Amino acid sequence: MTDFTPNPDLDLVLVRTTDVAPELVWRAWTTPELIVQWFAPKPWSTPSCEIDLWPGGKFNTTMRSPEGQEFPSTGCILVAEEGSRLVFTSALGPGFRPQVDEEGFPFTAVITFEPHGNGGTKYTATAIHADAAARKSHEEMGFAEGWSTVFDQLVEVTKSL
Amino acid sequence: MTDFTPNPDLDLVLVRTTDVAPELVWRAWTTPELIVQWFAPKPWSTPSCEIDLWPGGKFNTTMRSPEGQEFPSTGCILVAEEGSRLVFTSALGPGFRPQVDEEGFPFTAVITFEPHGNGGTKYTATAIHADAAARKSHEEMGFAEGWSTVFDQLVEVTKSL
Repeated sequence: MTDFTPNPDLDLVLVRTTDVAPELVWRAWTTPELIVQWFAPKPWSTPSCEIDLWPGGKFNTTMRSPEGQEFPSTGCILVAEEGSRLVFTSALGPGFRPQVDEEGFPFTAVITFEPHGNGGTKYTATAIHADAAARKSHEEMGFAEGWSTVFDQLVEVTKSL
Repeated sequence: MTDFTPNPDLDLVLVRTTDVAPELVWRAWTTPELIVQWFAPKPWSTPSCEIDLWPGGKFNTTMRSPEGQEFPSTGCILVAEEGSRLVFTSALGPGFRPQVDEEGFPFTAVITFEPHGNGGTKYTATAIHADAAARKSHEEMGFAEGWSTVFDQLVEVTKSL
């Protein structure tokens, strides 16, 4: 894959650092039993997650609101470079099958895990959209705060590993 | 990637065999200067093709009608296993960016090249769709005849290699 340069008109980027090692941050991001502990900002929860960690494999999660309404989503893993990069998209389902979301917008997530400081991680989450309208919708849904909050939750989960 | 089993309700499959070696069929499928010679069923033509042959790379082609109207399309390479399997999709553009086709339908193409007989190739082209309506549209656009015709053109091109 070409090195990816975000387009500020179309993409959203979150950068965080932590003293947790890249291997542990990767593990928390790619292990269903760990993802269910941090993926949704509390008091939302993640009752289920299924991942086949290879190109074409599923990346499926269900989020549940505090009122108990469930929001399942299906996606497809595009790149799984152990410990360094995870890419998945909602534009495709498992097996690279196109899926059309009539109400929302598709996006691709590029998550990178780089060594930082003394054994820590520079974490970069980029959401890639088809157009500026989708970027704006995602921003207004609270991308920055939401993805930052769940990163804090993820770091908390790694403390138990 | 999981071995892929087509869904007959959603997918279209073309299987052909040829005495041309898999390496040459692969080369004709992945080299822009060769693709422009066979990709569109004559009297249509393919004035341009650009490929970055890695996951996330572009797969862009332009087809031209006999009347001279041009139809550019952009896509994204998902899998490039040299000599054996090529996967690309129109649901994503270069860099895995989602792209929405308001008028048509997205599809993913899985092209496999298997050894067959005495040095030949079993060629399988599968078009994967989001739903039965997209499959039907693609079928009615002449998938079976079109993809078979251009495979004949491809084999003709390999004779010059």
